[in-house]
Amino acid sequence: MAQGQGDYRILHEAALRDYLAGLPELKAVLGGEPARWTITEVGDGNLNLVFIVKGASGGVAVKQALPYVRLVGESWPLPLSRAHHEYLALSKQAQLAPGLVPALLHHNESLALTVMELLEPHIIMRKGLVAATQYPGFVGDISTFMARTLFFTSDLALTAAEKKEGIAAFAGNHALCKITEDLIFTDPYRIAEQNRWTAPYLDALAASLRDDMELHVAISRLKLKFMASPEALLHGDLHTGSIMVTDSQTRVIDPEFAFYGPMGFDVGAVLANLLMAYFASSGHERAPGGRAAFEAWVLETVEQVWNEFSRKFLDLWRAGAAGDAYPVSLFASEKGAARLEVERQTYMQRLFTDAVGFAAAKITRRIFGLAHNIDFELIEDSKKRAISEARAVRLARAMMVETGAFRTIADVTGAARKLRVWRPELSS
Amino acid sequence: MAQGQGDYRILHEAALRDYLAGLPELKAVLGGEPARWTITEVGDGNLNLVFIVKGASGGVAVKQALPYVRLVGESWPLPLSRAHHEYLALSKQAQLAPGLVPALLHHNESLALTVMELLEPHIIMRKGLVAATQYPGFVGDISTFMARTLFFTSDLALTAAEKKEGIAAFAGNHALCKITEDLIFTDPYRIAEQNRWTAPYLDALAASLRDDMELHVAISRLKLKFMASPEALLHGDLHTGSIMVTDSQTRVIDPEFAFYGPMGFDVGAVLANLLMAYFASSGHERAPGGRAAFEAWVLETVEQVWNEFSRKFLDLWRAGAAGDAYPVSLFASEKGAARLEVERQTYMQRLFTDAVGFAAAKITRRIFGLAHNIDFELIEDSKKRAISEARAVRLARAMMVETGAFRTIADVTGAARKLRVWRPELSS
Repeated sequence: MAQGQGDYRILHEAALRDYLAGLPELKAVLGGEPARWTITEVGDGNLNLVFIVKGASGGVAVKQALPYVRLVGESWPLPLSRAHHEYLALSKQAQLAPGLVPALLHHNESLALTVMELLEPHIIMRKGLVAATQYPGFVGDISTFMARTLFFTSDLALTAAEKKEGIAAFAGNHALCKITEDLIFTDPYRIAEQNRWTAPYLDALAASLRDDMELHVAISRLKLKFMASPEALLHGDLHTGSIMVTDSQTRVIDPEFAFYGPMGFDVGAVLANLLMAYFASSGHERAPGGRAAFEAWVLETVEQVWNEFSRKFLDLWRAGAAGDAYPVSLFASEKGAARLEVERQTYMQRLFTDAVGFAAAKITRRIFGLAHNIDFELIEDSKKRAISEARAVRLARAMMVETGAFRTIADVTGAARKLRVWRPELSS
Repeated sequence: MAQGQGDYRILHEAALRDYLAGLPELKAVLGGEPARWTITEVGDGNLNLVFIVKGASGGVAVKQALPYVRLVGESWPLPLSRAHHEYLALSKQAQLAPGLVPALLHHNESLALTVMELLEPHIIMRKGLVAATQYPGFVGDISTFMARTLFFTSDLALTAAEKKEGIAAFAGNHALCKITEDLIFTDPYRIAEQNRWTAPYLDALAASLRDDMELHVAISRLKLKFMASPEALLHGDLHTGSIMVTDSQTRVIDPEFAFYGPMGFDVGAVLANLLMAYFASSGHERAPGGRAAFEAWVLETVEQVWNEFSRKFLDLWRAGAAGDAYPVSLFASEKGAARLEVERQTYMQRLFTDAVGFAAAKITRRIFGLAHNIDFELIEDSKKRAISEARAVRLARAMMVETGAFRTIADVTGAARKLRVWRPELSS
């Protein structure tokens, strides 16, 4: 964890090799002659350089932040400090949810560079979902990750002073929050240069979003909650592209959007991305019903992610809440314990409602905003893609505007199941 | 605004004289020979030293923080950094609500010392209220102060980045927040050494508070909101002891509890302290109905404080919201403007509900917690005092637990008016 003192410079292959060779622990992990290490740039994300380095005895992943958005270029600068916030978040997650994030091997704040365990043979979960792969261990892992990282950084587990220190430590990550504020909570609902959608089929739907004032109020409320409800330390970008999996393992990566925000944003991100995998699935089928088992698994997973998250979060709360919220001393009697248990259910219901709203926002942005995802993008027939997208958007609109109609996660999956056979009217 | 480099030391009379004499601007304000300046310690608050210094041509007020709670002693340490947070808050308030706070003349962070304009002939408003004095300018001033300081530090006026910087700047004031969290939101509802109340008359009522689980849930929700809803930069202690008045002027002082919190906490503090002045009034009357005009004025003031605050806050929002919340671009159409106006009313209704809850918490703590106020304390007949207090507590319990029943400020004053003649059952 040594921290270099040099100024920032981009480490391309040769420089990276020299840098790693100068770090004894990493040299030992990689093994053999540095000159023979293979170094491959594999970053397919939007923001950073990512290298896989392999030596005679092992491999590592190296992530270096660029001072601009890689997807767009130098015209869109982005602070390097995000790498340090990512490092702080990853450290905290490793402590709270051991085994569910890649092991941290080295961080250099000046270089905005982090070296991590190489995840092999893990793949990005989203790719697996496109291929209709089921991940039986996913529910258990992601629900543990969310329950533990959110509970233990919340007012239920921290003193108010600890919580304020945490909020302050991540306040500097506001440029990353701003990306979310713009791309998720604003642009899809107005004319914005970076917006795109499956044209011409969704043209009318895109226009209706810009004209739907109930939706504008709903997204504005969610945006305000995102900005001003520091409930817990969020991953901040918890989609299926930030999760790497094997048949039996789950690793959450890339927490550079981490900050103290509303818990429902992380939970909603997972639900949204599973729902998109569900709606996209019909676009990938070779024969009608060919992915039925996968689709049933996805919806079951949506339900279980919420149910297991909620169960584990409540269990942590019941097992011992050392935080300043809901102080134990006010609920010590038998009557108090019973009343507190009712309040816990109310708290989770509120969190569920938040998650439903945020999930809807995450779906909508992937269909009308800047950043799309391969669930839909890999549906080659653009009309089929538009049909899948329109179904997802219809559910999202209901979840965002009629949030109160979704009281349980089964209400969400039930609505999704119905929309699976809905034929949207498309523009042409 | 020069900042000294020396380490902290307590400046008693001689040292303070030398210190001020070394500051040319202050020497000029005071005038004449420093040796002839009069220096009087007048701090009647709980935390600090306060000196009034007068010279040949003028006077100043000097406030120095002590490293402990003055009321309790060195056994209860308290960080000196609060003086710097107070200075930051006062500077911001002076900018946003000019003329409504004392002018800042000097601040020394190391000494935790601030020199301000001497407010003369202003008195602490609470003293005036005990004497049944009416302040016709108060509504206009306090509603302007709250509307402007809260609106312009909220997400409606700031970018998310500016807001996060502000939150971080005050995160270090957590020890002061902790006082509020303990003394207002926890202790009155449990057995705590520092609690006191008008015994024996309120013994049963005090016990009922400790056993009332609906109240424990309500106060816990308010506590969580206090800790985790950084909506705006609050004064944080906006009672009538933090307001100095003349017949025509209002000055808000002592923002050392400042932090980013829920707006309803400041608004509720003003409403609570006026309501306590109302309920205490019957205890101060010499003949039945002798303070009827004053009492009518107080309740009218309660209504106007909310109504004027709400009107001014909404006007600022309508006049131009440069913040990242409710972005203008999403509500640009005529239909959008109409929908946003409905949403503004919803926003204010939510803020009102918060204020009602926080007001109730502020009333309850003054009757059962550590810090009482002279409204009630100066009622010498302890049975009369208990009657006034019991009425206030009955209203507070309803406001906290049945908050939804208070839809308008007239619901609050109406309930208060009814309780003015209610005869509580007292313990004996």
